[in-house]
Amino acid sequence: MISTGSTLRELRERKPLVHQITNYVVMNETANATLALGALPVMAHAPQEVEEMVSLASALVINIGTLSDHWIEAMLLAGKAANARKIPVVLDPVGVGATTYRTETARRILDEVDIAVLRGNQGEIATLVGAEAEVRGVESMATGLEPPALARGAARQFGLVASVTGPIDHVSDGDRIVSVANGHPLLAAVTGTGCISTALTGCFVAVKPDDPVAAAAEALIAYEVAAEDAAAGADGPGTFHARLYDALAALDPDTVDGRAKYSES
Amino acid sequence: MISTGSTLRELRERKPLVHQITNYVVMNETANATLALGALPVMAHAPQEVEEMVSLASALVINIGTLSDHWIEAMLLAGKAANARKIPVVLDPVGVGATTYRTETARRILDEVDIAVLRGNQGEIATLVGAEAEVRGVESMATGLEPPALARGAARQFGLVASVTGPIDHVSDGDRIVSVANGHPLLAAVTGTGCISTALTGCFVAVKPDDPVAAAAEALIAYEVAAEDAAAGADGPGTFHARLYDALAALDPDTVDGRAKYSES
Amino acid sequence: MISTGSTLRELRERKPLVHQITNYVVMNETANATLALGALPVMAHAPQEVEEMVSLASALVINIGTLSDHWIEAMLLAGKAANARKIPVVLDPVGVGATTYRTETARRILDEVDIAVLRGNQGEIATLVGAEAEVRGVESMATGLEPPALARGAARQFGLVASVTGPIDHVSDGDRIVSVANGHPLLAAVTGTGCISTALTGCFVAVKPDDPVAAAAEALIAYEVAAEDAAAGADGPGTFHARLYDALAALDPDTVDGRAKYSES
Repeated sequence: MISTGSTLRELRERKPLVHQITNYVVMNETANATLALGALPVMAHAPQEVEEMVSLASALVINIGTLSDHWIEAMLLAGKAANARKIPVVLDPVGVGATTYRTETARRILDEVDIAVLRGNQGEIATLVGAEAEVRGVESMATGLEPPALARGAARQFGLVASVTGPIDHVSDGDRIVSVANGHPLLAAVTGTGCISTALTGCFVAVKPDDPVAAAAEALIAYEVAAEDAAAGADGPGTFHARLYDALAALDPDTVDGRAKYSES
Repeated sequence: MISTGSTLRELRERKPLVHQITNYVVMNETANATLALGALPVMAHAPQEVEEMVSLASALVINIGTLSDHWIEAMLLAGKAANARKIPVVLDPVGVGATTYRTETARRILDEVDIAVLRGNQGEIATLVGAEAEVRGVESMATGLEPPALARGAARQFGLVASVTGPIDHVSDGDRIVSVANGHPLLAAVTGTGCISTALTGCFVAVKPDDPVAAAAEALIAYEVAAEDAAAGADGPGTFHARLYDALAALDPDTVDGRAKYSES
Repeated sequence: MISTGSTLRELRERKPLVHQITNYVVMNETANATLALGALPVMAHAPQEVEEMVSLASALVINIGTLSDHWIEAMLLAGKAANARKIPVVLDPVGVGATTYRTETARRILDEVDIAVLRGNQGEIATLVGAEAEVRGVESMATGLEPPALARGAARQFGLVASVTGPIDHVSDGDRIVSVANGHPLLAAVTGTGCISTALTGCFVAVKPDDPVAAAAEALIAYEVAAEDAAAGADGPGTFHARLYDALAALDPDTVDGRAKYSES
């Protein structure tokens, strides 16, 4: 059941630690979004420490936005350690389809680690399921599949919850689909806003690991309602970006459900 | 011909992908400036993927601000791949003169890669041409050459367009010099503003590769006019920084040429 | 003697270069805070250049927030080079206690490098002195020692100045304790604010190397008075964060001492 307010309330009480192995571009931003929402971020990527670090966490977020080989090693070690402890893992396959290295790395992580939620844009997820996609760097332009079918297909193919974001987001476990229509166009004008949605998915899944479809959808609702608040009064992408953390911190569990625009099918 | 507005208009229509191999300190900032202006940034530094990534791009930006050996390898691979495909390469020799490692790396890139535009401050460029320079970390304090002569000399010595920024910027191909006098002192109070000017140079060169002098000068005009807008109403470097992205996104192609302060000689 | 205004005035005149080997998450932020205060940051981490870079600097800041082996090598090289030149070294043992790798690395740096100021939160410092601590990722929750005793004990055990921050900060050389009560709760809502306090400690120690207790306390006073200014008018952590740099740049040497809340014992 989608109940964003109550999950958010619980998150702020429990303050789950969310271990993030993410890209250089957005580390500060995903840490700040995690903290603003009410959870605790920790960034650690050394193979020597990721297994120990993840064992302290309530969720692991893996983001392949700026890869290199020793980071991949750490992602796999941390992912397997999380699996062994039943700690949910969220994967963001940033830029999959742009290069073979990214595509192969994402596939390898999907093969070797049990992923709870795969969060990506349409082109990235389409690439992973083998559908037609137009990817430009870390942006995806178009795909050959309708987004709801894409989310359902990816979920079935990989045995996980797929969270496919775009103007309308679609979250599916292969059967059920939750579609979220909150948000604001300014999100597309700031780098790392997709990565933030993945980090916040990790925060919600940390609190609600037994219902990852609901957790992933609630994360998007919370984030996108905050983005609507941030956009009101922003003068452009820079002030919007600063106000986004204000809005995440100010997000009201009592009113967020009333503002959520979603449907289930 | 300097026509900042029309190049900016074309940039926003074409949304060129600009591959950036840059330093850890400014990755988020140069990506956001690229996006705010209207182009698409992509950051990738693994030797395994840079040749493939750059082949999708319309320009490559190399910035040596936080070096290590495997990054240098990637810079050279990406630079040569860009050259092979006639994709323009912009180099920012951050901190050259501060350490031998940086100076040798910048020289090596200049030797092995065909650079379209070399964008640096006076001390960095003076170091590269072998003139007297006082460099403190990544700041340069003074140089033994007059800036216009420095720009012209560097352009001739290395066979490229030199874009030497400072209170007044000088862009030269060895003959022609375009001098730009827009900007605001707050730019010097925020880290990475030089790196952003290099990233935006990459954006403009991506759209106007056949006239790199004009493209480099237009990038500085666009950026510095935006900085003037951002400074109006800022309370200091932090709010200026946030407002800089707003101003880049709001930059009006219809009025920017009328606000440009430049001269050609 | 605590005289924050006069040290700040001298800092802005001398603009000391502060070499920072810090974590990926906060590099931009600590560089911007250093610059806003009035000093010059430089980030460099390659073993090939850190000894040369630190020789140009007036202080070295080592922060272990996102470790990997080749960074540790650089930290040790830079630390020893700083020691050889009597350049003060400030250490931030981020996340010590969370993983063995971090704890061992911090201990190794303390063993091999002569540290002027050790700046950490209560859990981190308690871990290092072998006291009871509850650490969650990079946050510490509680410790078995009273904070003033912790600061004094760490200072004696390691033969340095310990700067233990929290709701009230305690700076000690093993005898003298300066306690600082400025600040604002919003500091805890932004990632990297602890790391910024360490960077600014480096800036003050660069100017006042002969009295590291005073320098470390003055850095906290300056930073936390600025945080009070930034919080006034902020709408949450995002706008607070932007305004923090404004406030550091606007910090008035003539009034900061009158606003300082500290006691000595």
